[in-house]
Amino acid sequence: MASEKPYLAVTCTAPVNIAVIKYWGKRDEELILPINSSLSVTLHQDQLKTTTTAVISKDFTEDRIWLNGREEDIGQPRIQACLREIRRLARKRRSGDEEDPLPLSLNYKVHVASVNNFPTAAGLASSASGYACLAYALARVYGVESDLSEVARRGSGSACRSLYGGFVEWQMGEQADGKDSVARQVAPESHWPELRVLILVVSAEKKLTGSTVGMQTSVETSPLLRFRAEAVVPARMAEMIRYVKERNFQGFGELTMKDSNQFHATCLDTFPPISYLNDTSRRIIHLVHRFNAHHGQTKARFLKGLPVKPGRLSDELKAALGMDPTPGSIKYIIATQVGPGPQILDHPHAHLLGPDGLPKPTV
Amino acid sequence: MASEKPYLAVTCTAPVNIAVIKYWGKRDEELILPINSSLSVTLHQDQLKTTTTAVISKDFTEDRIWLNGREEDIGQPRIQACLREIRRLARKRRSGDEEDPLPLSLNYKVHVASVNNFPTAAGLASSASGYACLAYALARVYGVESDLSEVARRGSGSACRSLYGGFVEWQMGEQADGKDSVARQVAPESHWPELRVLILVVSAEKKLTGSTVGMQTSVETSPLLRFRAEAVVPARMAEMIRYVKERNFQGFGELTMKDSNQFHATCLDTFPPISYLNDTSRRIIHLVHRFNAHHGQTKARFLKGLPVKPGRLSDELKAALGMDPTPGSIKYIIATQVGPGPQILDHPHAHLLGPDGLPKPTV
Repeated sequence: MASEKPYLAVTCTAPVNIAVIKYWGKRDEELILPINSSLSVTLHQDQLKTTTTAVISKDFTEDRIWLNGREEDIGQPRIQACLREIRRLARKRRSGDEEDPLPLSLNYKVHVASVNNFPTAAGLASSASGYACLAYALARVYGVESDLSEVARRGSGSACRSLYGGFVEWQMGEQADGKDSVARQVAPESHWPELRVLILVVSAEKKLTGSTVGMQTSVETSPLLRFRAEAVVPARMAEMIRYVKERNFQGFGELTMKDSNQFHATCLDTFPPISYLNDTSRRIIHLVHRFNAHHGQTKARFLKGLPVKPGRLSDELKAALGMDPTPGSIKYIIATQVGPGPQILDHPHAHLLGPDGLPKPTV
Repeated sequence: MASEKPYLAVTCTAPVNIAVIKYWGKRDEELILPINSSLSVTLHQDQLKTTTTAVISKDFTEDRIWLNGREEDIGQPRIQACLREIRRLARKRRSGDEEDPLPLSLNYKVHVASVNNFPTAAGLASSASGYACLAYALARVYGVESDLSEVARRGSGSACRSLYGGFVEWQMGEQADGKDSVARQVAPESHWPELRVLILVVSAEKKLTGSTVGMQTSVETSPLLRFRAEAVVPARMAEMIRYVKERNFQGFGELTMKDSNQFHATCLDTFPPISYLNDTSRRIIHLVHRFNAHHGQTKARFLKGLPVKPGRLSDELKAALGMDPTPGSIKYIIATQVGPGPQILDHPHAHLLGPDGLPKPTV
């Protein structure tokens, strides 16, 4: 019977998500509560995912964590917040539930190992998939079955959107304690399978300003950001949800571009100004608009990408684009699609940690 | 007596101005009425100026205009609007004034020649100095002494700010006919003589989107622009005027940077997005902030420029800037200061047009 089991290992995977209505700005730095709701597309894990193994054992003397093979400081506030949250939820659940299905002591220490199947330098939201995966794995080993939005959110705001597949809304909520600041699925990945997402990595350099500090400065200094959060985003959320439900690519694509532009605009309105676009990204944006104008409709939408047409471009289109190729300006392209939420990997080989609770040599 | 004179030639110069509270967006395309007030610094004509000669003669059979030596189409709507306005004001004045000081017939055709002492490609507001100079020259030959804001404005909105020296406010006005949308001097150039302006030309390429079309698209598509015009600029105008009067460089510089950033932000919020900054401009902005942070105060302000320190930079400062030089990224630098308004050149040699009303061979 499980109650004798002194050791439990769980391995799962979680996806990256890309926001089409952007999250930028917190109303509570500690609880990570946003100043506006946001909406994202969960990307397929065939291309981008985090894999995390969590092991609890009576033999462990301390909590430990390894990221991409290297041990990291478990004391990091955000990791600690996730651990605290999950243990609180587990305790809460036990107290409310007599026959305890997971008798392992909450006092057992945990070992965590996490790897990404994509370069973190790519500027892709590895913290979203990372903390979603951490929350999901911890929930399994500690026997938590309630909504994990809060756990993931405490690690990284947008991580709560990686807890579900398809199209996911992060409702900002109103309560001071953040209990109503949760993620919910708007539509499953099966709803719009033909949707494609192309990610063009134009720079592998680390961002000059990280998003945590960037958001903070924006909230403090940008008059436009507050207006955006209060007066623009609510209507855009409703509009975007409608487009998703109707599978209206024209509306979906255009609003995605507009909201991405407005996010970058509020960064520029920040003091000192923040810019996450470079000349190459701007050329790509321009190219997408030329491309769509040529076709008389939104065929491509700008996330971090532009359409790669299979085969050769027509001379007519080339002329319409009216731009010279700039070899080398795009580091690499990731072509992906809408995907599912976190997955459990049952096969023991999947574990990143061995029975001794240490990273397997292969990692 | 003047009344026999069949020919009258006037030559004058007008300055370029750089806005520290930006003008972006019209509420009336025809009358060129702005959606918000703006404030500018008139730059010294030793570095940047337009020179214009206007000649009226009973012998001319048609209005004609030469820009930088090449004859242009006098039928251009904005040039026509200026001519119409000036003749209307002149007629109005005569009717109100019995002993006519300038008896030359309003029906005399005019020949105009205009040259800039700076490359128009530099992206400097040549239309501002150009139309201010045109309005000023036409007023002289047709004997108009009233406020020329409307005449210059009909040519190019910001041109009305080039009618005065020093620090100039363009009040947006409220009337539908634009009669109260006028420029006025906030402080003369003598008020803050030590102020320096550095213009760094980072690209000589023509802007992808001209300001006329750009503004129009922004007004139509940017939610942030309307908010800026209505809720942000009024307070900034009052604040900036106070800084100018107090010669508060700290406040003046910081607000100038913020408003420049916000203008660029509304461009990015436009659909399709407009960007007038490239990687080099952004590096310069970043450099200015690093420079100021190093000195613990705003020593440099961002217009299109950054400070050029005489002599060598201290190693300490170089370290603080933490940026590698990028040779060739700045095309050239114009170092200038606050300057006076339009000037009359009395010397006949100054005329760009000969007695025959045609450009002098030297031009």
